[in-house]
Amino acid sequence: MVDGRLARELPVVPVSTITATTQLLRTSNETYAYRRFGHGPPLLCLQHFTGTLDNWDPAVTDALASEREVILFDNAGVGRSTGKVPPTIAAMATHAFAFMDGLGLTTCDVLGFSLGGMIAQQMAEERPSIFRRMILVATAPRGGEDIMHIEKPSLSKFLQDPKLRGYAVLQKIFFAPTESSQAAGQAFITRLVQRTQDREPPSGPEVAGAQIAAFREWEQFSGERFADLESIRQPALVVNGIHDEMISVANSFRLAEHLPNAVLLVYPDSGHGSLFQFHESFSRQAKAFLASESPYAPY
Amino acid sequence: MVDGRLARELPVVPVSTITATTQLLRTSNETYAYRRFGHGPPLLCLQHFTGTLDNWDPAVTDALASEREVILFDNAGVGRSTGKVPPTIAAMATHAFAFMDGLGLTTCDVLGFSLGGMIAQQMAEERPSIFRRMILVATAPRGGEDIMHIEKPSLSKFLQDPKLRGYAVLQKIFFAPTESSQAAGQAFITRLVQRTQDREPPSGPEVAGAQIAAFREWEQFSGERFADLESIRQPALVVNGIHDEMISVANSFRLAEHLPNAVLLVYPDSGHGSLFQFHESFSRQAKAFLASESPYAPY
Repeated sequence: MVDGRLARELPVVPVSTITATTQLLRTSNETYAYRRFGHGPPLLCLQHFTGTLDNWDPAVTDALASEREVILFDNAGVGRSTGKVPPTIAAMATHAFAFMDGLGLTTCDVLGFSLGGMIAQQMAEERPSIFRRMILVATAPRGGEDIMHIEKPSLSKFLQDPKLRGYAVLQKIFFAPTESSQAAGQAFITRLVQRTQDREPPSGPEVAGAQIAAFREWEQFSGERFADLESIRQPALVVNGIHDEMISVANSFRLAEHLPNAVLLVYPDSGHGSLFQFHESFSRQAKAFLASESPYAPY
Repeated sequence: MVDGRLARELPVVPVSTITATTQLLRTSNETYAYRRFGHGPPLLCLQHFTGTLDNWDPAVTDALASEREVILFDNAGVGRSTGKVPPTIAAMATHAFAFMDGLGLTTCDVLGFSLGGMIAQQMAEERPSIFRRMILVATAPRGGEDIMHIEKPSLSKFLQDPKLRGYAVLQKIFFAPTESSQAAGQAFITRLVQRTQDREPPSGPEVAGAQIAAFREWEQFSGERFADLESIRQPALVVNGIHDEMISVANSFRLAEHLPNAVLLVYPDSGHGSLFQFHESFSRQAKAFLASESPYAPY
């Protein structure tokens, strides 16, 4: 009786973005840091420029974990994953394959955010069976333009401002310069710092430098521009904020035009971090998209 | 008992897009033809180029009628509405205001499709309180481009093909040139012809000519291009097919960029009639958008 009453009084706290233990997967080449939580078919989450496991917003990944087993992954050289950050998207995709192979995952859904969305596209082209449904947020196709030019004034004014550090910079560059978007950015950061233990080391300049090199290489293309997207036949959901200074929304328009099976969803009053700003809407849309068994993207 | 059994055995068939009686509203200037059915807050539906009350897809308007009172409206000079089709969007908006005033409707939601989406924008700018939430499908802002140039080869090859008539033309120009989209177009037409009684007279060349003149005038702008959209503060849902030959999807991109509070939803493998091709998805998204009480468009 006492135990029963206790069980009723103490809410069951599921493992979450905030509490999931960081695990290490040893493969023949590298050791990869990751976290997994939630219940349902697996959803691989591929992170943004300089982001680690700690940069996933609990409001998004916990919401998704109600219907999916969420797998957060640090690519080589990021966080506690060993190795060096490679200077190409293709080499990052090779690491992601090694991680999935090491976990014994032959197929899954994917949420690729920014840099992670490029890796997801590369993986889908190399191994079409790897993904069932793809969510591509704030990202760009190979041959896209205005991809992470951190030297441009709209970004460098924040990145080089000595008064701004760490999360304060993130709030400026991930959110639109409006009161409502900046307030959403503040709330996002409040959620990020809820995780206080077992955190990843933040990315340093070597990580940033190699990832920037990968963006520059990704802007190159040969042959007919965007024609390679035709081979990505999976249902895809392309999402962006309309005022994305880091990877222009025009790249999402190009993805929608050239991916054969993609729905495009664009949010107002938001930038690179639109999925965090409108986390309730994004999570609802993403869950509905992933729950669909249709061969077509519309959900 | 017998009556009770009969009531259980005979399914209740609600009034629908197929069965709703055409009503006539007399105002001081014109008499407007309309149909209304369904239950819930009112949703005004503004129709496309040359379309009449009979051109609404039951798969869409019946789905919406489960949560809304759907009001289909023929503007002046269309179907059994009296008067002449005016050559400007602004004059068409004046007729829509007269119709709403005549019904005693001071505010409602709106679904503006193509030409109807332009009229909805004009109305929102002239009388901001008129709409609560706006759905703008396959339409363009004032100053947009590639708006209904029926002389361009991709359209004229169907419009001037002597072997194509009526609905067969509609299937070609509203849907993408893929097997899947054309099949969806065929299904759409099969649904349209389910209404066999109390139909509207089809639009003739005078209707088309005046509406084309209105499109040409709508392409003109003065001052800063698209700046007028800033005044439309309602939550808006902008929808299009990625391969819209009648009103290029670039116009929907411009709406998303300049409307301050709009979500953009773009469907793959579809054209001007994407809402009919993906009627299940569109109806679900539209109902979720309309059901939201948030001041922000994301839903």
